[in-house]
Amino acid sequence: MRRVRVGAVLAATMLSGCVATTTVTQAPPVVAPGDVPPGMQFLYGSAEAAALDHQAYNALVDAVRRRLASEKADSGATSDRISAVLRPGATLDQPMMIPCGDRPRAVVFDVDETLLLNLGFEYDDAAHPGRAYAESRWADWERTGADRVEAIPGAIAAVTALRRMGVTVVFNTNRSAANAAFTEAAIDHAGLGPAKHGETLWLKGDLGSGSGKDSRRSAIAARYCVVAMGGDQLGDFSDLFAGTPQQRRAAASSPAIHGLWGRFWFVLPNPVYGTALKGGLDDVFPADKRWTPTAGDK
Amino acid sequence: MRRVRVGAVLAATMLSGCVATTTVTQAPPVVAPGDVPPGMQFLYGSAEAAALDHQAYNALVDAVRRRLASEKADSGATSDRISAVLRPGATLDQPMMIPCGDRPRAVVFDVDETLLLNLGFEYDDAAHPGRAYAESRWADWERTGADRVEAIPGAIAAVTALRRMGVTVVFNTNRSAANAAFTEAAIDHAGLGPAKHGETLWLKGDLGSGSGKDSRRSAIAARYCVVAMGGDQLGDFSDLFAGTPQQRRAAASSPAIHGLWGRFWFVLPNPVYGTALKGGLDDVFPADKRWTPTAGDK
Repeated sequence: MRRVRVGAVLAATMLSGCVATTTVTQAPPVVAPGDVPPGMQFLYGSAEAAALDHQAYNALVDAVRRRLASEKADSGATSDRISAVLRPGATLDQPMMIPCGDRPRAVVFDVDETLLLNLGFEYDDAAHPGRAYAESRWADWERTGADRVEAIPGAIAAVTALRRMGVTVVFNTNRSAANAAFTEAAIDHAGLGPAKHGETLWLKGDLGSGSGKDSRRSAIAARYCVVAMGGDQLGDFSDLFAGTPQQRRAAASSPAIHGLWGRFWFVLPNPVYGTALKGGLDDVFPADKRWTPTAGDK
Repeated sequence: MRRVRVGAVLAATMLSGCVATTTVTQAPPVVAPGDVPPGMQFLYGSAEAAALDHQAYNALVDAVRRRLASEKADSGATSDRISAVLRPGATLDQPMMIPCGDRPRAVVFDVDETLLLNLGFEYDDAAHPGRAYAESRWADWERTGADRVEAIPGAIAAVTALRRMGVTVVFNTNRSAANAAFTEAAIDHAGLGPAKHGETLWLKGDLGSGSGKDSRRSAIAARYCVVAMGGDQLGDFSDLFAGTPQQRRAAASSPAIHGLWGRFWFVLPNPVYGTALKGGLDDVFPADKRWTPTAGDK
Protein backbone atom coordinates (compact mmCIF):
# COMPACT_ATOMS: atom_id res chain seq x y z
CA MET A 1 0.00 0.00 0.00
CA ARG A 2 1.02 3.61 -0.06
CA ARG A 3 0.28 6.38 2.36
CA VAL A 4 2.02 9.47 3.65
CA ARG A 5 5.76 9.14 3.30
CA VAL A 6 7.00 9.45 6.85
CA GLY A 7 10.61 9.03 5.78
CA ALA A 8 10.42 12.19 3.70
CA VAL A 9 8.99 14.10 6.64
CA LEU A 10 11.91 12.96 8.77
CA ALA A 11 14.34 13.93 6.04
CA ALA A 12 12.73 17.37 5.85
CA THR A 13 13.14 17.70 9.60
CA MET A 14 16.82 16.88 9.31
CA LEU A 15 17.24 19.39 6.52
CA SER A 16 15.62 22.15 8.51
CA GLY A 17 17.95 21.23 11.36
CA CYS A 18 20.78 22.32 9.11
CA VAL A 19 19.09 25.40 7.69
CA ALA A 20 18.22 26.66 11.18
CA THR A 21 21.84 27.55 11.93
CA THR A 22 22.05 31.27 11.34
CA THR A 23 24.80 31.93 8.83
CA VAL A 24 24.63 28.99 6.44
CA THR A 25 24.48 30.30 2.91
CA GLN A 26 23.38 27.11 1.22
CA ALA A 27 21.34 24.27 2.64
CA PRO A 28 23.59 21.21 2.52
CA PRO A 29 22.15 17.95 1.25
CA VAL A 30 20.75 15.71 3.98
CA VAL A 31 22.23 12.66 2.34
CA ALA A 32 25.44 13.04 0.38
CA PRO A 33 25.00 12.64 -3.41
CA GLY A 34 24.88 8.96 -4.21
CA ASP A 35 23.94 7.96 -0.67
CA VAL A 36 20.78 5.96 -0.22
CA PRO A 37 18.58 5.99 2.92
CA PRO A 38 19.13 2.83 4.97
CA GLY A 39 15.54 1.66 4.54
CA MET A 40 15.92 1.74 0.75
CA GLN A 41 19.27 -0.04 0.93
CA PHE A 42 17.53 -2.74 2.91
CA LEU A 43 14.35 -3.10 0.85
CA TYR A 44 15.59 -2.55 -2.69
CA GLY A 45 19.21 -3.63 -2.45
CA SER A 46 19.77 -6.25 0.21
CA ALA A 47 19.97 -10.02 0.19
CA GLU A 48 18.32 -10.07 3.60
CA ALA A 49 15.13 -8.42 2.28
CA ALA A 50 15.11 -10.78 -0.71
CA ALA A 51 15.35 -13.70 1.72
CA LEU A 52 12.41 -12.32 3.74
CA ASP A 53 10.42 -11.97 0.50
CA HIS A 54 11.10 -15.55 -0.57
CA GLN A 55 10.31 -16.74 2.95
CA ALA A 56 6.90 -15.04 2.91
CA TYR A 57 6.02 -16.37 -0.54
CA ASN A 58 7.31 -19.88 0.13
CA ALA A 59 5.31 -20.02 3.35
CA LEU A 60 2.19 -18.70 1.60
CA VAL A 61 2.33 -21.15 -1.29
CA ASP A 62 3.11 -24.07 1.05
CA ALA A 63 0.18 -23.15 3.32
CA VAL A 64 -2.26 -22.93 0.42
CA ARG A 65 -0.98 -26.19 -1.06
CA ARG A 66 -1.42 -27.99 2.27
CA ARG A 67 -4.90 -26.54 2.70
CA LEU A 68 -5.99 -27.69 -0.74
CA ALA A 69 -4.56 -31.18 -0.15
CA SER A 70 -6.27 -31.39 3.22
CA GLU A 71 -9.61 -30.24 1.81
CA LYS A 72 -9.30 -32.72 -1.05
CA ALA A 73 -8.66 -35.56 1.42
CA ASP A 74 -11.63 -34.36 3.47
CA SER A 75 -13.95 -33.88 0.48
CA GLY A 76 -17.54 -32.83 0.97
CA ALA A 77 -17.26 -30.94 4.23
CA THR A 78 -17.19 -27.43 2.79
CA SER A 79 -19.35 -25.98 5.54
CA ASP A 80 -16.50 -25.48 7.99
CA ARG A 81 -14.08 -23.91 5.55
CA ILE A 82 -13.23 -20.36 6.49
CA SER A 83 -11.80 -17.39 4.68
CA ALA A 84 -8.78 -15.36 5.78
CA VAL A 85 -11.02 -12.26 5.71
CA LEU A 86 -12.56 -11.03 8.96
CA ARG A 87 -16.36 -11.01 8.97
CA PRO A 88 -18.31 -7.80 9.63
CA GLY A 89 -18.51 -7.24 13.38
CA ALA A 90 -15.30 -9.15 14.06
CA THR A 91 -12.79 -7.60 16.45
CA LEU A 92 -9.06 -8.15 16.93
CA ASP A 93 -9.92 -9.93 20.19
CA GLN A 94 -12.48 -12.11 18.41
CA PRO A 95 -11.29 -12.31 14.81
CA MET A 96 -14.12 -14.35 13.36
CA MET A 97 -13.58 -15.15 9.70
CA ILE A 98 -16.07 -15.20 6.84
CA PRO A 99 -17.29 -18.74 6.00
CA CYS A 100 -16.23 -19.91 2.55
CA GLY A 101 -19.13 -22.05 1.44
CA ASP A 102 -18.25 -23.57 -1.91
CA ARG A 103 -16.93 -20.41 -3.52
CA PRO A 104 -13.83 -20.69 -5.74
CA ARG A 105 -10.53 -20.05 -4.00
CA ALA A 106 -8.49 -16.87 -4.20
CA VAL A 107 -5.51 -15.22 -2.56
CA VAL A 108 -5.74 -11.44 -2.07
CA PHE A 109 -2.57 -9.37 -2.40
CA ASP A 110 -1.73 -5.75 -1.94
CA VAL A 111 0.41 -4.49 -4.84
CA ASP A 112 3.01 -1.81 -3.94
CA GLU A 113 5.98 -3.21 -2.00
CA THR A 114 4.02 -6.47 -1.68
CA LEU A 115 4.18 -7.80 -5.24
CA LEU A 116 5.85 -4.82 -6.94
CA LEU A 117 8.99 -2.88 -6.13
CA ASN A 118 8.46 0.73 -7.19
CA LEU A 119 12.10 1.13 -8.21
CA GLY A 120 11.61 4.09 -10.55
CA PHE A 121 9.69 6.20 -8.08
CA GLU A 122 11.97 5.37 -5.18
CA TYR A 123 15.08 6.08 -7.24
CA ASP A 124 13.72 9.54 -7.98
CA ASP A 125 12.95 9.97 -4.29
CA ALA A 126 16.42 8.87 -3.23
CA ALA A 127 17.93 11.27 -5.76
CA HIS A 128 16.05 14.19 -4.15
CA PRO A 129 16.76 13.92 -0.42
CA GLY A 130 14.65 16.20 1.74
CA ARG A 131 11.95 16.74 -0.87
CA ALA A 132 8.46 16.33 0.55
CA TYR A 133 6.13 13.59 -0.64
CA ALA A 134 3.62 14.85 -3.22
CA GLU A 135 0.43 13.04 -4.11
CA SER A 136 0.62 14.50 -7.63
CA ARG A 137 4.06 12.95 -8.21
CA TRP A 138 2.78 9.55 -7.10
CA ALA A 139 -0.21 9.92 -9.47
CA ASP A 140 2.22 10.76 -12.28
CA TRP A 141 4.16 7.61 -11.35
CA GLU A 142 1.00 5.46 -11.49
CA ARG A 143 0.37 6.72 -15.04
CA THR A 144 3.90 6.67 -16.45
CA GLY A 145 5.99 4.21 -14.43
CA ALA A 146 4.62 0.85 -15.63
CA ASP A 147 7.96 -0.21 -17.15
CA ARG A 148 10.08 0.94 -14.21
CA VAL A 149 8.77 -1.56 -11.66
CA GLU A 150 10.04 -5.01 -10.79
CA ALA A 151 8.39 -7.99 -9.12
CA ILE A 152 9.30 -8.68 -5.49
CA PRO A 153 11.73 -11.63 -5.28
CA GLY A 154 9.64 -14.80 -5.22
CA ALA A 155 6.38 -13.11 -6.23
CA ILE A 156 6.22 -14.33 -9.83
CA ALA A 157 6.85 -17.94 -8.81
CA ALA A 158 4.19 -17.63 -6.11
CA VAL A 159 1.38 -16.22 -8.27
CA THR A 160 2.25 -18.76 -10.98
CA ALA A 161 2.09 -21.65 -8.50
CA LEU A 162 -1.21 -20.39 -7.07
CA ARG A 163 -2.82 -20.09 -10.50
CA ARG A 164 -1.63 -23.61 -11.40
CA MET A 165 -3.40 -24.84 -8.27
CA GLY A 166 -6.60 -23.23 -9.56
CA VAL A 167 -6.44 -20.34 -7.10
CA THR A 168 -7.37 -16.89 -8.43
CA VAL A 169 -4.92 -14.07 -7.71
CA VAL A 170 -6.79 -10.92 -6.67
CA PHE A 171 -5.11 -7.52 -6.27
CA ASN A 172 -6.45 -5.04 -3.67
CA THR A 173 -4.46 -1.81 -3.80
CA ASN A 174 -4.83 1.86 -2.91
CA ARG A 175 -3.66 2.92 -6.34
CA SER A 176 -6.36 5.10 -7.88
CA ALA A 177 -9.31 3.66 -9.81
CA ALA A 178 -8.81 6.54 -12.27
CA ASN A 179 -5.49 4.95 -13.29
CA ALA A 180 -6.77 1.38 -13.52
CA ALA A 181 -5.44 0.67 -17.01
CA PHE A 182 -1.95 1.86 -16.05
CA THR A 183 -1.88 -0.34 -12.95
CA GLU A 184 -3.05 -3.33 -14.99
CA ALA A 185 -0.09 -2.59 -17.30
CA ALA A 186 2.38 -2.28 -14.41
CA ILE A 187 1.28 -5.63 -12.97
CA ASP A 188 1.54 -7.19 -16.42
CA HIS A 189 4.94 -5.65 -17.09
CA ALA A 190 6.32 -7.10 -13.84
CA GLY A 191 5.20 -10.58 -14.91
CA LEU A 192 2.42 -10.82 -12.32
CA GLY A 193 -0.64 -10.44 -14.54
CA PRO A 194 -3.31 -10.73 -15.59
CA ALA A 195 -5.09 -8.12 -13.46
CA LYS A 196 -8.50 -6.94 -14.63
CA HIS A 197 -10.21 -3.99 -12.98
CA GLY A 198 -13.59 -4.95 -11.57
CA GLU A 199 -12.70 -8.64 -11.59
CA THR A 200 -9.28 -9.34 -10.11
CA LEU A 201 -8.08 -5.76 -9.53
CA TRP A 202 -9.63 -3.59 -6.83
CA LEU A 203 -8.58 0.02 -6.45
CA LYS A 204 -9.07 3.03 -4.22
CA GLY A 205 -12.35 4.62 -5.23
CA ASP A 206 -13.98 1.38 -6.33
CA LEU A 207 -16.40 1.30 -3.43
CA GLY A 208 -16.03 4.88 -2.31
CA SER A 209 -14.21 3.65 0.75
CA GLY A 210 -11.11 5.83 0.85
CA SER A 211 -7.90 4.11 1.94
CA GLY A 212 -9.66 1.53 4.07
CA LYS A 213 -9.70 -1.86 2.38
CA ASP A 214 -12.34 -3.72 4.41
CA SER A 215 -15.23 -2.91 2.09
CA ARG A 216 -13.26 -4.15 -0.92
CA ARG A 217 -12.15 -7.23 1.03
CA SER A 218 -15.77 -8.01 1.89
CA ALA A 219 -16.78 -7.70 -1.76
CA ILE A 220 -13.94 -10.02 -2.79
CA ALA A 221 -14.82 -12.52 -0.04
CA ALA A 222 -18.42 -12.56 -1.29
CA ARG A 223 -17.15 -13.97 -4.58
CA TYR A 224 -14.20 -16.07 -3.44
CA CYS A 225 -13.00 -18.27 -0.63
CA VAL A 226 -9.94 -16.20 0.33
CA VAL A 227 -7.44 -18.80 1.53
CA ALA A 228 -4.63 -16.32 2.26
CA MET A 229 -3.74 -12.62 2.10
CA GLY A 230 -0.43 -10.85 1.52
CA GLY A 231 0.62 -7.29 2.29
CA ASP A 232 3.29 -4.96 3.66
CA GLN A 233 0.99 -2.92 5.92
CA LEU A 234 -1.43 -4.25 8.51
CA GLY A 235 -4.20 -2.38 6.68
CA ASP A 236 -3.75 -5.01 3.97
CA PHE A 237 -5.28 -7.52 6.39
CA SER A 238 -7.83 -5.54 8.39
CA ASP A 239 -8.79 -1.90 8.93
CA LEU A 240 -9.08 -2.70 12.65
CA PHE A 241 -5.35 -2.20 13.28
CA ALA A 242 -5.34 1.38 14.53
CA GLY A 243 -4.16 3.61 17.34
CA THR A 244 -0.69 4.37 18.62
CA PRO A 245 2.37 2.40 17.49
CA GLN A 246 2.31 0.49 20.80
CA GLN A 247 -1.39 -0.33 20.47
CA ARG A 248 -0.92 -1.59 16.92
CA ARG A 249 2.17 -3.58 17.88
CA ALA A 250 0.37 -5.15 20.85
CA ALA A 251 -2.59 -6.06 18.62
CA ALA A 252 -0.34 -7.82 16.09
CA SER A 253 1.11 -9.94 18.93
CA SER A 254 -2.16 -10.53 20.79
CA PRO A 255 -3.30 -14.10 21.58
CA ALA A 256 -6.08 -14.06 18.98
CA ILE A 257 -3.93 -12.61 16.17
CA HIS A 258 -0.31 -13.79 16.45
CA GLY A 259 -1.05 -17.27 15.13
CA LEU A 260 -2.38 -15.88 11.83
CA TRP A 261 0.99 -14.56 10.61
CA GLY A 262 2.66 -16.98 8.26
CA ARG A 263 -0.45 -19.21 8.21
CA PHE A 264 -3.32 -17.09 6.81
CA TRP A 265 -1.81 -13.60 6.67
CA PHE A 266 1.61 -13.13 5.05
CA VAL A 267 3.73 -10.03 5.57
CA LEU A 268 6.36 -8.50 3.29
CA PRO A 269 8.98 -6.17 4.80
CA ASN A 270 8.77 -2.42 4.11
CA PRO A 271 10.93 -0.07 6.19
CA VAL A 272 10.70 2.67 3.52
CA TYR A 273 7.21 4.13 4.01
CA GLY A 274 3.88 3.53 5.65
CA THR A 275 2.30 3.07 9.05
CA ALA A 276 5.35 1.28 10.48
CA LEU A 277 7.46 4.45 10.42
CA LYS A 278 5.95 6.32 13.32
CA GLY A 279 6.78 7.13 16.88
CA GLY A 280 9.25 9.12 18.96
CA LEU A 281 11.69 7.76 21.54
CA ASP A 282 8.89 7.28 24.07
CA ASP A 283 6.82 5.27 21.60
CA VAL A 284 9.61 3.05 20.35
CA PHE A 285 11.68 2.37 23.50
CA PRO A 286 9.99 1.21 26.73
CA ALA A 287 10.98 3.31 29.75
CA ASP A 288 12.25 0.29 31.68
CA LYS A 289 14.57 -0.85 28.87
CA ARG A 290 16.76 2.24 28.55
CA TRP A 291 20.48 2.06 29.10
CA THR A 292 23.40 4.42 29.49
CA PRO A 293 27.01 3.38 28.93
CA THR A 294 28.67 2.69 32.25
CA ALA A 295 32.23 3.50 31.32
CA GLY A 296 34.62 4.67 28.68
CA ASP A 297 33.24 5.70 25.32
CA LYS A 298 29.82 7.23 25.96
CA MET B 1 24.43 -10.74 14.68
CA ARG B 2 26.26 -7.48 15.04
CA ARG B 3 28.83 -5.90 12.82
CA VAL B 4 29.80 -2.41 11.80
CA ARG B 5 26.91 -0.06 12.23
CA VAL B 6 26.40 1.29 8.75
CA GLY B 7 23.52 3.49 9.85
CA ALA B 8 25.79 5.40 12.18
CA VAL B 9 28.27 5.90 9.38
CA LEU B 10 25.53 7.37 7.23
CA ALA B 11 24.41 9.57 10.09
CA ALA B 12 27.96 10.76 10.54
CA THR B 13 28.09 11.57 6.84
CA MET B 14 24.93 13.62 7.14
CA LEU B 15 26.31 15.44 10.16
CA SER B 16 29.53 16.29 8.39
CA GLY B 17 27.39 17.57 5.53
CA CYS B 18 26.14 20.20 7.94
CA VAL B 19 29.47 20.94 9.59
CA ALA B 20 31.18 21.44 6.26
CA THR B 21 29.35 24.72 5.64
CA THR B 22 31.82 27.39 6.58
CA THR B 23 30.30 29.61 9.24
CA VAL B 24 28.20 27.28 11.34
CA THR B 25 29.04 27.81 15.00
CA GLN B 26 27.44 24.67 16.36
CA ALA B 27 26.82 21.36 14.63
CA PRO B 28 23.04 20.90 14.53
CA PRO B 29 21.57 17.53 15.46
CA VAL B 30 21.02 15.24 12.50
CA VAL B 31 17.73 14.06 13.93
CA ALA B 32 15.65 16.45 16.01
CA PRO B 33 15.53 15.56 19.72
CA GLY B 34 12.97 12.83 20.26
CA ASP B 35 13.04 11.73 16.63
CA VAL B 36 13.87 8.11 15.93
CA PRO B 37 15.55 6.82 12.75
CA PRO B 38 13.00 5.11 10.48
CA GLY B 39 14.73 1.74 10.72
CA MET B 40 14.39 1.77 14.51
CA GLN B 41 10.75 2.88 14.31
CA PHE B 42 10.17 -0.11 12.08
CA LEU B 43 12.11 -2.76 14.00
CA TYR B 44 11.50 -1.76 17.62
CA GLY B 45 8.17 0.03 17.41
CA SER B 46 6.01 -1.23 14.58
CA ALA B 47 3.24 -3.76 14.31
CA GLU B 48 4.48 -4.70 10.86
CA ALA B 49 7.86 -5.87 12.20
CA ALA B 50 6.13 -7.77 15.01
CA ALA B 51 3.98 -9.50 12.38
CA LEU B 52 7.10 -10.42 10.38
CA ASP B 53 8.66 -11.82 13.56
CA HIS B 54 5.63 -13.96 14.39
CA GLN B 55 5.47 -15.09 10.77
CA ALA B 56 9.09 -16.28 10.83
CA TYR B 57 8.67 -18.10 14.15
CA ASN B 58 5.31 -19.63 13.25
CA ALA B 59 6.73 -20.90 9.97
CA LEU B 60 9.83 -22.28 11.72
CA VAL B 61 7.92 -24.14 14.43
CA ASP B 62 5.40 -25.47 11.89
CA ALA B 63 8.19 -26.71 9.60
CA VAL B 64 10.01 -28.48 12.45
CA ARG B 65 6.75 -30.01 13.73
CA ARG B 66 5.90 -31.34 10.25
CA ARG B 67 9.40 -32.72 9.83
CA LEU B 68 9.27 -34.56 13.13
CA ALA B 69 5.82 -35.97 12.33
CA SER B 70 6.99 -37.07 8.91
CA GLU B 71 10.14 -38.71 10.30
CA LYS B 72 8.09 -40.45 12.96
CA ALA B 73 5.72 -41.84 10.32
CA ASP B 74 8.74 -42.93 8.28
CA SER B 75 10.65 -44.43 11.18
CA GLY B 76 13.94 -46.17 10.65
CA ALA B 77 15.17 -44.38 7.57
CA THR B 78 17.54 -41.96 9.28
CA SER B 79 20.18 -42.23 6.57
CA ASP B 80 18.55 -39.67 4.27
CA ARG B 81 17.85 -37.07 6.91
CA ILE B 82 19.77 -33.90 6.26
CA SER B 83 20.81 -30.93 8.32
CA ALA B 84 20.11 -27.28 7.46
CA VAL B 85 23.88 -26.65 7.69
CA LEU B 86 25.94 -26.63 4.50
CA ARG B 87 28.64 -29.26 4.37
CA PRO B 88 32.31 -28.33 3.90
CA GLY B 89 32.96 -27.80 0.20
CA ALA B 90 29.36 -26.85 -0.53
CA THR B 91 28.74 -23.81 -2.73
CA LEU B 92 25.71 -21.56 -3.12
CA ASP B 93 25.18 -23.18 -6.53
CA GLN B 94 25.41 -26.65 -5.01
CA PRO B 95 24.31 -26.21 -1.40
CA MET B 96 24.85 -29.76 -0.18
CA MET B 97 23.80 -30.21 3.43
CA ILE B 98 25.45 -32.22 6.19
CA PRO B 99 23.81 -35.64 6.74
CA CYS B 100 22.11 -35.98 10.13
CA GLY B 101 22.66 -39.62 10.98
CA ASP B 102 20.85 -40.32 14.23
CA ARG B 103 22.09 -37.28 16.12
CA PRO B 104 19.63 -35.46 18.40
CA ARG B 105 17.77 -32.57 16.82
CA ALA B 106 18.55 -28.89 17.31
CA VAL B 107 17.63 -25.50 15.88
CA VAL B 108 20.46 -22.97 15.67
CA PHE B 109 19.65 -19.30 16.25
CA ASP B 110 21.61 -16.11 16.08
CA VAL B 111 20.89 -13.94 19.14
CA ASP B 112 20.94 -10.15 18.52
CA GLU B 113 17.91 -8.91 16.57
CA THR B 114 17.02 -12.57 15.95
CA LEU B 115 15.86 -13.67 19.40
CA LEU B 116 16.71 -10.52 21.37
CA LEU B 117 15.87 -6.87 20.82
CA ASN B 118 18.74 -4.77 22.13
CA LEU B 119 16.41 -2.01 23.28
CA GLY B 120 18.74 -0.43 25.83
CA PHE B 121 21.68 -0.10 23.46
CA GLU B 122 19.55 1.13 20.59
CA TYR B 123 17.78 3.67 22.78
CA ASP B 124 21.16 5.11 23.73
CA ASP B 125 22.12 5.14 20.07
CA ALA B 126 18.91 6.89 19.02
CA ALA B 127 19.44 9.46 21.78
CA HIS B 128 22.88 10.33 20.35
CA PRO B 129 22.31 10.90 16.63
CA GLY B 130 25.46 11.20 14.58
CA ARG B 131 27.69 9.50 17.13
CA ALA B 132 29.92 6.86 15.57
CA TYR B 133 29.62 3.20 16.49
CA ALA B 134 32.23 2.15 19.08
CA GLU B 135 33.21 -1.45 19.73
CA SER B 136 33.97 -0.54 23.35
CA ARG B 137 30.43 0.73 23.91
CA TRP B 138 28.98 -2.49 22.52
CA ALA B 139 31.29 -4.51 24.81
CA ASP B 140 30.07 -2.41 27.74
CA TRP B 141 26.51 -3.23 26.67
CA GLU B 142 27.24 -6.97 26.55
CA ARG B 143 28.48 -6.78 30.14
CA THR B 144 25.88 -4.44 31.67
CA GLY B 145 22.73 -4.58 29.55
CA ALA B 146 21.30 -8.00 30.45
CA ASP B 147 18.13 -6.54 31.97
CA ARG B 148 17.52 -4.01 29.17
CA VAL B 149 16.78 -6.50 26.41
CA GLU B 150 13.47 -8.00 25.33
CA ALA B 151 12.62 -11.16 23.40
CA ILE B 152 11.59 -10.72 19.76
CA PRO B 153 7.80 -11.08 19.39
CA GLY B 154 7.06 -14.80 19.05
CA ALA B 155 10.54 -15.97 20.06
CA ILE B 156 9.70 -17.20 23.56
CA ALA B 157 6.74 -19.23 22.30
CA ALA B 158 8.92 -20.68 19.54
CA VAL B 159 11.85 -21.82 21.72
CA THR B 160 9.37 -23.20 24.25
CA ALA B 161 7.53 -25.18 21.56
CA LEU B 162 10.81 -26.51 20.14
CA ARG B 163 12.05 -27.67 23.53
CA ARG B 164 8.71 -29.40 24.20
CA MET B 165 9.21 -31.28 20.93
CA GLY B 166 12.57 -32.48 22.24
CA VAL B 167 14.56 -30.13 20.01
CA THR B 168 17.61 -28.45 21.56
CA VAL B 169 17.86 -24.68 21.12
CA VAL B 170 21.44 -23.67 20.25
CA PHE B 171 22.65 -20.05 20.16
CA ASN B 172 25.41 -19.05 17.73
CA THR B 173 26.26 -15.37 18.14
CA ASN B 174 29.12 -12.95 17.54
CA ARG B 175 28.93 -11.65 21.06
CA SER B 176 32.34 -12.12 22.69
CA ALA B 177 33.37 -15.35 24.41
CA ALA B 178 34.97 -13.14 27.08
CA ASN B 179 31.45 -12.02 28.09
CA ALA B 180 29.84 -15.46 28.02
CA ALA B 181 28.29 -15.29 31.49
CA PHE B 182 26.67 -11.93 30.73
CA THR B 183 25.18 -13.22 27.47
CA GLU B 184 23.83 -16.30 29.24
CA ALA B 185 22.20 -13.87 31.69
CA ALA B 186 20.73 -11.70 28.91
CA ILE B 187 19.22 -14.73 27.19
CA ASP B 188 17.83 -15.92 30.52
CA HIS B 189 16.46 -12.50 31.39
CA ALA B 190 14.57 -12.32 28.10
CA GLY B 191 12.90 -15.64 28.86
CA LEU B 192 14.78 -17.56 26.19
CA GLY B 193 17.14 -19.61 28.34
CA PRO B 194 18.82 -21.77 29.26
CA ALA B 195 21.97 -21.00 27.30
CA LYS B 196 25.20 -22.65 28.43
CA HIS B 197 28.54 -21.65 26.96
CA GLY B 198 30.32 -24.59 25.38
CA GLU B 199 27.10 -26.59 25.15
CA THR B 200 24.21 -24.57 23.72
CA LEU B 201 25.89 -21.14 23.46
CA TRP B 202 28.60 -20.49 20.87
CA LEU B 203 30.40 -17.16 20.81
CA LYS B 204 32.93 -15.20 18.80
CA GLY B 205 36.35 -16.46 19.81
CA ASP B 206 35.19 -19.98 20.62
CA LEU B 207 36.95 -21.51 17.63
CA GLY B 208 39.24 -18.62 16.81
CA SER B 209 37.17 -18.00 13.73
CA GLY B 210 36.50 -14.27 13.88
CA SER B 211 33.03 -13.16 12.77
CA GLY B 212 32.54 -16.07 10.39
CA LYS B 213 30.14 -18.61 11.83
CA ASP B 214 30.77 -21.63 9.58
CA SER B 215 33.34 -23.26 11.87
CA ARG B 216 30.97 -23.00 14.84
CA ARG B 217 28.08 -24.26 12.69
CA SER B 218 30.14 -27.28 11.67
CA ALA B 219 30.95 -28.03 15.30
CA ILE B 220 27.27 -27.77 16.23
CA ALA B 221 26.23 -29.94 13.28
CA ALA B 222 28.73 -32.60 14.42
CA ARG B 223 26.73 -32.95 17.63
CA TYR B 224 23.20 -32.28 16.43
CA CYS B 225 20.88 -32.79 13.51
CA VAL B 226 20.19 -29.10 12.81
CA VAL B 227 16.62 -29.09 11.48
CA ALA B 228 16.37 -25.31 11.02
CA MET B 229 18.34 -22.09 11.49
CA GLY B 230 17.20 -18.56 12.30
CA GLY B 231 18.98 -15.24 11.83
CA ASP B 232 18.75 -11.61 10.73
CA GLN B 233 21.90 -11.61 8.56
CA LEU B 234 22.77 -14.06 5.80
CA GLY B 235 25.99 -14.81 7.68
CA ASP B 236 23.75 -16.56 10.19
CA PHE B 237 23.14 -19.24 7.55
CA SER B 238 26.41 -19.47 5.62
CA ASP B 239 29.66 -17.52 5.32
CA LEU B 240 29.42 -18.03 1.55
CA PHE B 241 27.13 -15.01 1.07
CA ALA B 242 29.68 -12.38 0.11
CA GLY B 243 30.48 -9.75 -2.50
CA THR B 244 28.59 -6.68 -3.62
CA PRO B 245 25.00 -6.03 -2.54
CA GLN B 246 23.81 -7.18 -6.00
CA GLN B 247 25.85 -10.37 -5.82
CA ARG B 248 24.53 -11.21 -2.37
CA ARG B 249 20.95 -10.39 -3.38
CA ALA B 250 21.22 -12.53 -6.51
CA ALA B 251 22.63 -15.41 -4.46
CA ALA B 252 19.70 -15.26 -2.01
CA SER B 253 17.28 -15.54 -4.94
CA SER B 254 19.25 -18.12 -6.93
CA PRO B 255 17.59 -21.38 -8.02
CA ALA B 256 19.51 -23.49 -5.51
CA ILE B 257 18.91 -21.17 -2.54
CA HIS B 258 15.52 -19.45 -2.79
CA GLY B 259 13.56 -22.53 -1.75
CA LEU B 260 15.39 -22.72 1.60
CA TRP B 261 13.87 -19.51 3.01
CA GLY B 262 10.90 -20.24 5.23
CA ARG B 263 11.56 -23.98 5.02
CA PHE B 264 15.05 -24.61 6.47
CA TRP B 265 16.41 -21.10 6.92
CA PHE B 266 14.26 -18.49 8.67
CA VAL B 267 14.94 -14.76 8.46
CA LEU B 268 14.08 -12.00 10.92
CA PRO B 269 13.89 -8.40 9.67
CA ASN B 270 16.66 -5.94 10.63
CA PRO B 271 16.83 -2.61 8.79
CA VAL B 272 18.84 -1.02 11.66
CA TYR B 273 22.36 -2.40 11.19
CA GLY B 274 24.35 -5.05 9.39
CA THR B 275 25.25 -6.23 5.95
CA ALA B 276 21.87 -5.26 4.46
CA LEU B 277 22.60 -1.53 4.82
CA LYS B 278 25.06 -1.05 2.03
CA GLY B 279 25.15 0.39 -1.44
CA GLY B 280 24.86 3.66 -3.30
CA LEU B 281 22.25 4.61 -5.90
CA ASP B 282 24.00 2.49 -8.54
CA ASP B 283 23.98 -0.57 -6.30
CA VAL B 284 20.39 -0.28 -5.12
CA PHE B 285 18.55 0.93 -8.24
CA PRO B 286 19.03 -0.84 -11.61
CA ALA B 287 19.89 1.57 -14.41
CA ASP B 288 16.91 0.47 -16.53
CA LYS B 289 14.38 1.07 -13.75
CA ARG B 290 14.99 4.78 -13.14
CA TRP B 291 12.23 7.31 -13.59
CA THR B 292 11.83 11.07 -13.70
CA PRO B 293 8.50 12.80 -13.13
CA THR B 294 6.93 13.73 -16.45
CA ALA B 295 4.91 16.74 -15.35
CA GLY B 296 3.98 19.04 -12.53
CA ASP B 297 5.59 18.55 -9.14
CA LYS B 298 9.09 17.29 -9.77
